[in-house]
Amino acid sequence: MATGVWLIGARGSVAVTSVVGALALRAGLAEPTGCVCELPALRGLTLPGLGDLVFGGHDIVDTPLSKRADELAAAGVLPGRLVTAVAGDLPTVAEALRPVPAGRCQSEIADGIAADIIAFRDRHHLDRVVVINVASTEAVPVPRSAHADLAALRAALARPGAPLPPSSLAAYAAFTAGCPFVDFTPSTGARLPALHELATSSGLPYAGNDGKTGETLVKSVLAPMFAMRNLTVRTWSGTNLLGGGDGANLADPAANAAKTASKQRLLAEILGYQPQGTTRIEYVDDIGDFKTAWDLITFTGFLGTSMRLEFSWHGCDSALAAPLVLDLARITAAAHRAGLSGPLADLAFFFKDPLGATDHSLAEQWAALCGLVRRVGAASR
Amino acid sequence: MATGVWLIGARGSVAVTSVVGALALRAGLAEPTGCVCELPALRGLTLPGLGDLVFGGHDIVDTPLSKRADELAAAGVLPGRLVTAVAGDLPTVAEALRPVPAGRCQSEIADGIAADIIAFRDRHHLDRVVVINVASTEAVPVPRSAHADLAALRAALARPGAPLPPSSLAAYAAFTAGCPFVDFTPSTGARLPALHELATSSGLPYAGNDGKTGETLVKSVLAPMFAMRNLTVRTWSGTNLLGGGDGANLADPAANAAKTASKQRLLAEILGYQPQGTTRIEYVDDIGDFKTAWDLITFTGFLGTSMRLEFSWHGCDSALAAPLVLDLARITAAAHRAGLSGPLADLAFFFKDPLGATDHSLAEQWAALCGLVRRVGAASR
Amino acid sequence: MATGVWLIGARGSVAVTSVVGALALRAGLAEPTGCVCELPALRGLTLPGLGDLVFGGHDIVDTPLSKRADELAAAGVLPGRLVTAVAGDLPTVAEALRPVPAGRCQSEIADGIAADIIAFRDRHHLDRVVVINVASTEAVPVPRSAHADLAALRAALARPGAPLPPSSLAAYAAFTAGCPFVDFTPSTGARLPALHELATSSGLPYAGNDGKTGETLVKSVLAPMFAMRNLTVRTWSGTNLLGGGDGANLADPAANAAKTASKQRLLAEILGYQPQGTTRIEYVDDIGDFKTAWDLITFTGFLGTSMRLEFSWHGCDSALAAPLVLDLARITAAAHRAGLSGPLADLAFFFKDPLGATDHSLAEQWAALCGLVRRVGAASR
Amino acid sequence: MATGVWLIGARGSVAVTSVVGALALRAGLAEPTGCVCELPALRGLTLPGLGDLVFGGHDIVDTPLSKRADELAAAGVLPGRLVTAVAGDLPTVAEALRPVPAGRCQSEIADGIAADIIAFRDRHHLDRVVVINVASTEAVPVPRSAHADLAALRAALARPGAPLPPSSLAAYAAFTAGCPFVDFTPSTGARLPALHELATSSGLPYAGNDGKTGETLVKSVLAPMFAMRNLTVRTWSGTNLLGGGDGANLADPAANAAKTASKQRLLAEILGYQPQGTTRIEYVDDIGDFKTAWDLITFTGFLGTSMRLEFSWHGCDSALAAPLVLDLARITAAAHRAGLSGPLADLAFFFKDPLGATDHSLAEQWAALCGLVRRVGAASR
Repeated sequence: MATGVWLIGARGSVAVTSVVGALALRAGLAEPTGCVCELPALRGLTLPGLGDLVFGGHDIVDTPLSKRADELAAAGVLPGRLVTAVAGDLPTVAEALRPVPAGRCQSEIADGIAADIIAFRDRHHLDRVVVINVASTEAVPVPRSAHADLAALRAALARPGAPLPPSSLAAYAAFTAGCPFVDFTPSTGARLPALHELATSSGLPYAGNDGKTGETLVKSVLAPMFAMRNLTVRTWSGTNLLGGGDGANLADPAANAAKTASKQRLLAEILGYQPQGTTRIEYVDDIGDFKTAWDLITFTGFLGTSMRLEFSWHGCDSALAAPLVLDLARITAAAHRAGLSGPLADLAFFFKDPLGATDHSLAEQWAALCGLVRRVGAASR
Repeated sequence: MATGVWLIGARGSVAVTSVVGALALRAGLAEPTGCVCELPALRGLTLPGLGDLVFGGHDIVDTPLSKRADELAAAGVLPGRLVTAVAGDLPTVAEALRPVPAGRCQSEIADGIAADIIAFRDRHHLDRVVVINVASTEAVPVPRSAHADLAALRAALARPGAPLPPSSLAAYAAFTAGCPFVDFTPSTGARLPALHELATSSGLPYAGNDGKTGETLVKSVLAPMFAMRNLTVRTWSGTNLLGGGDGANLADPAANAAKTASKQRLLAEILGYQPQGTTRIEYVDDIGDFKTAWDLITFTGFLGTSMRLEFSWHGCDSALAAPLVLDLARITAAAHRAGLSGPLADLAFFFKDPLGATDHSLAEQWAALCGLVRRVGAASR
Repeated sequence: MATGVWLIGARGSVAVTSVVGALALRAGLAEPTGCVCELPALRGLTLPGLGDLVFGGHDIVDTPLSKRADELAAAGVLPGRLVTAVAGDLPTVAEALRPVPAGRCQSEIADGIAADIIAFRDRHHLDRVVVINVASTEAVPVPRSAHADLAALRAALARPGAPLPPSSLAAYAAFTAGCPFVDFTPSTGARLPALHELATSSGLPYAGNDGKTGETLVKSVLAPMFAMRNLTVRTWSGTNLLGGGDGANLADPAANAAKTASKQRLLAEILGYQPQGTTRIEYVDDIGDFKTAWDLITFTGFLGTSMRLEFSWHGCDSALAAPLVLDLARITAAAHRAGLSGPLADLAFFFKDPLGATDHSLAEQWAALCGLVRRVGAASR
Repeated sequence: MATGVWLIGARGSVAVTSVVGALALRAGLAEPTGCVCELPALRGLTLPGLGDLVFGGHDIVDTPLSKRADELAAAGVLPGRLVTAVAGDLPTVAEALRPVPAGRCQSEIADGIAADIIAFRDRHHLDRVVVINVASTEAVPVPRSAHADLAALRAALARPGAPLPPSSLAAYAAFTAGCPFVDFTPSTGARLPALHELATSSGLPYAGNDGKTGETLVKSVLAPMFAMRNLTVRTWSGTNLLGGGDGANLADPAANAAKTASKQRLLAEILGYQPQGTTRIEYVDDIGDFKTAWDLITFTGFLGTSMRLEFSWHGCDSALAAPLVLDLARITAAAHRAGLSGPLADLAFFFKDPLGATDHSLAEQWAALCGLVRRVGAASR
């Protein structure tokens, strides 16, 4: 039942919060708050346990894990007492982290990534490894013809140049190594026809994109409320203030564009029409790992009466993301064990821009998730 | 298919907005925004149409309907152009309004109420009449032994004194007249064992209580969001500022207590525990028929991280209530036609404190509502 | 004592609200709410009275005044009963409105503008005319060498081409006609060395820019609060949602840039340092003439504790601007009568980007305003 | 120049934050953020320096200072690194803390309090001691005839019973010991005619009441803004959610009443009329030492247009109060040195319910404060 979790971006805030949290939960030092699989409705099914998870991963930086954990404690993301309590377990995880392999072409780099993952699986005698991308958001890549077809992609990867963005190269390598892949970021990841072909021909499931941790989570329950009451949303305008590493990255307009587009598309899909208004992302480094979102919604009711709703959300992104990363590792591992392959649309509950799914209502997504977990939990016996 | 709607409090804001709105919709002058039965998911089933509804009712005041309609236009609740457009139809409705009958004991008063309703049904050749309470909120009544049993209640009603609050007397009279009863207010209405006995023995359905039009509507989608994500709500504190007639009435601490208690109970039922915090209702006459609610929610996530959500809601109560009154009249009429009796738990979608139902998640309530409408729509053929 | 008010943009929302309001006040139909000159501290000084004001103006569109007044009533900016009550007075004002003169060069256009103003002054036997720009915001113009010097400017105006943006051409024409000029918009107006030279050599006062009617008004009291308490503002991030004509215009990034820059500069001038954060302006036509601003301020206190303040402001721009336009007309007329010339820095109270002043604290600006009004009121006896 | 600061409630959050902060500032470990006397406008006058302050005090509990400091660090009020850094200095302060003296009548208790203060002054060779009440808020006391007159009060104190609430007994003892008294709480303190008589006859200044640290601070700048713009405030409704010790105490309706009344009175004094709406204080222990206030202000502008402003404030009460306690100690000591006696109305800047002052506009209060500091700073040379 031992399950590997290979984190792309393993030294980032989300990854380190996930690792420290899993160690603390295993040691009985904290409650599993935020872990969806620990809810009464899902608990007790035969998913891999939190204690079955073994962590490894790649990162392009080499900041020591313990240093990142201390920084997160100073920033109020991790409780200092937990960082101290699990300090003795961090070196074992740190040993399983690897620098991103180099190579003359992306094919060689992918081989290096896959080799690292396979070595990790063998060393720890793992039943399977789930690869999860929690690296910084990439810019939207230039479309290329090699993306459309696996044979063309393989040929392109063997030549110099970089046909794939890093997140997609990680997905390619994961599939090559026989591992499911989950993209928690808005980057491209597995969302290319060539990679879909590789995953399904290898019998591998994958999921994504973009963990739903803040404003979009709230949208996914408020928008259906307006729809169910036949109230017409006229304007939905949002401002997101982000600090931390991801904030700085998203200040890049290219990365920003990918994220804000998916945030507004959801409204059209739930409501059946696109209200006015846009979503702004602004980087404010003083805010740190906490994010503030403010949304104004104007709507009309009976006979055209104008009304409004405003909300502001102050959340800690890493603390919201980390338990979902653990949930995704456990459910995706069970789905792989149960023989599922291709996009796991029933994981839409976790994502802003869910693969293979168009129902953005959180309640519908919750029902789909419960169904999936019951199936793959039952299948395991 | 002609269906009567007998409004208790027929000259109040909600009643007049419902009447003017129904006339405007029938004339094709407005879209059915806010009318749940007009959503694609429910439209087309054989409910009584908006054009089948005939209005009458009781009120303790005698303000002319047209004067109330003008006041609502001045207050921005009704568009002036619609009030002007339907002015020619208001006298017909006004003729069907009656003062509340007098009597030496409540039994005589109830007979008078029932006689008025029956006369209305006969005069307009109606298939049935749904009685809907939209009067001001009452204080919580003193419990009495006569409430427990129909025979005891009948005996008590025949004696001087007032064993029933007005809302319950209206329910009693409705049932006596063979009519379904809906309570859109937090008052007692049909919620007494003796009245339940009368309704079921008469084969009559009833529903309530307290139309869910503002802060509680938002709570009913946000609280499940926290629950589904296994986030622990620590505090949920609300402030409601109300103007208009209902606001002044709710400033009475006794009426207030009934309303605020049901607002917080919902949280415990959705979350499985009671967060800290209370709901305050304050009367501010400057606000008029518009209501402002502000809620602060503090919650903890993974490893105890503190986060928060605030929302403020600015809604027009009458505009939110009126289309639901029309929906309730249509669905309850269809349920009666289909032979249902007793509390209609599947109407929980419409109520803050739903009779016979304990699931307060709006998404679950929506599913139940759709099921009910499909059953009673199909049953009619 | 008869004083003309010549409005550039005389058929726009601010102008029409000012005119209808002045007529209603004169007729005793409304209280002078929002009129600063009617406060006890300033009332009773010998400013021109509201009844002394005579309106005229230019506009590039020819929408009838009465139609614009009806539109403003429909939008909730003007009460319908006042529009009806003053309807008989509007034709007189409408007769005093002129299309913007044409010409082969800007010199000819300016002559036409000045001729219209002088004709208006003569026809109505006015002591003086104050020209006030309430037209839509212009894009920031390209700097030109002719702006630096009056002789060069006169030469350039006589040639084809448009060395001056419309707001500056209006200021030029006003000064040529011997009239004070006030710019209520963020456009360039009189803010060019050549125009300053013309005003001072003609003994004429001028004032501007950009009426302080919403978010910036609140900033001008909150920022000094932080400063006086020695609290360090870390972030001040604002979102402004605007509808109406000015909103659409400001969606043009060039116009937008002028406005948002002045909004943030004020913070640096009050606080002595520039906090993080920007101001966003977004156009949302559903909002109409009402504007919603949301600001998040994070600040640190004793020993570095992080704290925050959020505000949202829902104001009607025209209703906030119009009484200030009347105040500015009256005070500027008195200043002219008292012999003042050049920029009236003591009118900073009214402006986001005040000419000749750097103190952005509203309380300091109020003291300066009171001083000015007492001086020019006393000077008149 | 050595100045004693004798804190009533010396082991409470505000006191401990003040002490730790003063030690950290003295050691150069932190910036004097929040210290008004360190602003450029006031710095450099001959007030006692932060390094001249020596702390002592009374408390009814005996929690060790270092334990309270650790608790405040855990709660995010004090930075852990500063608590660690000043740990070596805390024992010296702890030695100067005393339990509240006992006695058979309040006269004996007052003698004991005064004796403790005098012993502290002598032991540390202090020029003077300022007594500052930062204890929990008391209930409003029953009025007594002995409060009106010093002779009657002295007679009553010598008899059994408790004619004075604790805060007033502390003020009595302070004056007896020849010390100025400052009340940072809403309790009665020196606000009794008999105590005023004692202070002035002893040549002692006093100040209070109720440190202005949150919602009221914001009110004191926003209300003048509406007044200066002649906008009519219709409603001002506030909700304050408090945790921590003071929050629990204020949940007592009697204490609550004192505080909420002063919060609304300020509006009438600034605006010249009392808007609708009340201020609610609710205790929510999850919020800890941080306070959230939400205020809704509705106002009307030109021709009656309705507009609104909402704000929410999230502040740490102890962090906001502590630097003001240091400021008050320094300025009151200088005022004593300069020979002032009676209520220091020019300290209104610091208080919600300022003694001897009725101008509640923060800008006016700031001007008065600057004047006072310049006078007493200059007087010292």
